[in-house]
Amino acid sequence: MSGKPLAQAEVELTIPFHDVDMLEIAWHGHYCRYFEIARCALLDSIGYGYVSMRASGFVWPIIDLQLRFVRPARFGQRIRVSAQLVEYEYRMRIKYLVSDSETGTPLVKGHSIQVAVDAQSGQMCYASPAVFLQRLGIQSDD
Amino acid sequence: MSGKPLAQAEVELTIPFHDVDMLEIAWHGHYCRYFEIARCALLDSIGYGYVSMRASGFVWPIIDLQLRFVRPARFGQRIRVSAQLVEYEYRMRIKYLVSDSETGTPLVKGHSIQVAVDAQSGQMCYASPAVFLQRLGIQSDD
Amino acid sequence: MSGKPLAQAEVELTIPFHDVDMLEIAWHGHYCRYFEIARCALLDSIGYGYVSMRASGFVWPIIDLQLRFVRPARFGQRIRVSAQLVEYEYRMRIKYLVSDSETGTPLVKGHSIQVAVDAQSGQMCYASPAVFLQRLGIQSDD
Amino acid sequence: MSGKPLAQAEVELTIPFHDVDMLEIAWHGHYCRYFEIARCALLDSIGYGYVSMRASGFVWPIIDLQLRFVRPARFGQRIRVSAQLVEYEYRMRIKYLVSDSETGTPLVKGHSIQVAVDAQSGQMCYASPAVFLQRLGIQSDD
Repeated sequence: MSGKPLAQAEVELTIPFHDVDMLEIAWHGHYCRYFEIARCALLDSIGYGYVSMRASGFVWPIIDLQLRFVRPARFGQRIRVSAQLVEYEYRMRIKYLVSDSETGTPLVKGHSIQVAVDAQSGQMCYASPAVFLQRLGIQSDD
Repeated sequence: MSGKPLAQAEVELTIPFHDVDMLEIAWHGHYCRYFEIARCALLDSIGYGYVSMRASGFVWPIIDLQLRFVRPARFGQRIRVSAQLVEYEYRMRIKYLVSDSETGTPLVKGHSIQVAVDAQSGQMCYASPAVFLQRLGIQSDD
Repeated sequence: MSGKPLAQAEVELTIPFHDVDMLEIAWHGHYCRYFEIARCALLDSIGYGYVSMRASGFVWPIIDLQLRFVRPARFGQRIRVSAQLVEYEYRMRIKYLVSDSETGTPLVKGHSIQVAVDAQSGQMCYASPAVFLQRLGIQSDD
Repeated sequence: MSGKPLAQAEVELTIPFHDVDMLEIAWHGHYCRYFEIARCALLDSIGYGYVSMRASGFVWPIIDLQLRFVRPARFGQRIRVSAQLVEYEYRMRIKYLVSDSETGTPLVKGHSIQVAVDAQSGQMCYASPAVFLQRLGIQSDD
C-alpha cells in the first residue's frame, strides 16, 4: 500500500452544552458519536454509506472500538474529527483523530473495526464483499 | 370514566453520571428518556408494547410532548417516574410525574400524545384501532 | 414590540445514525438537543451564552419545554433549526422551528421557557436581570 | 494478589427503546453508559464514588476505553454488566463484561483506564493517591 490512504474524511463539530459533564469536559462516551459522524462522512465519500451498504445486502456492525483520551474538550470548543481507512481486505478498520480545530492539538485517538455480515443469512463474511472493494477502486478476485 | 386509570405504571431510576450537566443537575432533555421508560412499562402492562404494536400493524409516533421542570435532580438521586393513560379513544395521551423516590417531592411533570399510524399505508388513524382498545378491556364499535 | 424579533438564530444539522430509532426516524427526544444547539447560537449572538451568563451571576434553567412533531426526519436528512426570542421581561421564552433544509417543510415546532436564578442565593428572579436586557439593547429600570 | 478481586460490582439493565438503532440492536456507543453505571456501582461499593473522589481532592478522568462487541442486544433485553477492578497501584483499570441476564451469553467485553488528577493543580498523579488505596483496604507507603 502506498502512503496515500484509500479513503479518508474530516468533519468539524462544536461541543454542545448537553455533551459536557460535571467536570466541565465533554463526557468521554460522546466521542463514539463524534467518531461515527466522521466514519459516515468517510463511507459517504466512497459511495458506501449506510443506505448503500444495506442496498448491497450487507450490514457492517462495529466489533471493536478503542478510544485514548489525551486532552479534554470544553463546552463550545471547535473540534476536528478525521477518519482514515487503514484496513479493508477482511474487515474495515478506521483510525480516528480528534483535535482542536484552531491549534491542531490532539484530544482523542482511536479506531473502530467492522465486519461485513450478510443481511439475509446473518452470517459474518470472512473477507470484505466485492461491492465494498469496488467502491475503493480495487478489483476483487471473487 | 371512573377514578381508576385504565393503565398506569411506575419505574424507579437512578440519575447516572452521564446525564448530569455542568450545572450539576440532570440535563432537562434526558427526561424524555425517563418518560419513555415509564411509558414502555405502562404499555407492557397491558400487553401492547412496541413489538406487540408493530405486530398489530400500527406504529404510534409521539406527536406532542410537554415537560414542566419543577425541581432539579442530582447525580445519584433515586427518582420515581409514574405514567398514567388519560386519553385513549382517538389518541393515546399519557401523563407523567417524576418525583424523588424517598421524599416524593415532585421534580418534573409532563405529558405525551401519540396517534396510531397504519404501518402499511402510513396513514394516520382518526380513532384508536380496536386492538388497542381490546388491550384496555374496552369493546370497540368497529 | 415591532415585527423584528430581538434575537434569533438558525443552525443547520444533519441527522446522524445514532439519533435514528427502530422506526427509522430521528428519535423524538433528540429534538431537545437540536433546540439547545439553536438556543445557544441565539444566546451567543447577543453575547449572553452560558459562560457569559454564569459570569454575570445567573443561571437560567429550563422550566418548560414543549415539542410538537409534525413530520419525521430520516438518517442523513439536513435540517434547519431556527430559534427566536419571543419573551424576555420576566423570563426567556424561545420559539423553535425545525424544518427540512432543502424544501423548508416544517418538521417540529416548540418552545422553551427559562427563568433567571441567582447563582449565589439559588433564588429565582421575578424579572429578567438588567445584564440580560442590556444584551438585548433594552434599558432596564433597575 | 490472590484470586479474589479487590472490588467488583454487577448491575442489571433493560435495553430501552431510545438506545436501539435502525439495525434494531443497541447502538454500540451506549455501552459506554452501561459500563459507567457498573463502574459507579463498583466505586460506590468501596466508598469512593464520584462525590467522595472530589471531596478527596482528586478527579479520575478516563484515559483509555476499549470495547469488543461479541453479540448484539435487542430492545427490552435484560443485560447484566459486571465490573471488576484489575489494576489500582498506578492507575485504575476496570474490566467489564456485559452478558444476557437470563442465559449468561456474553455480549460485550471491555476495559477502562483512569488516572488520578490533583483537582487543584490539574497535575496527573504518577501513583494512586493514598485515599484510594485505603478504600481498597491497602496500606500505602506515602
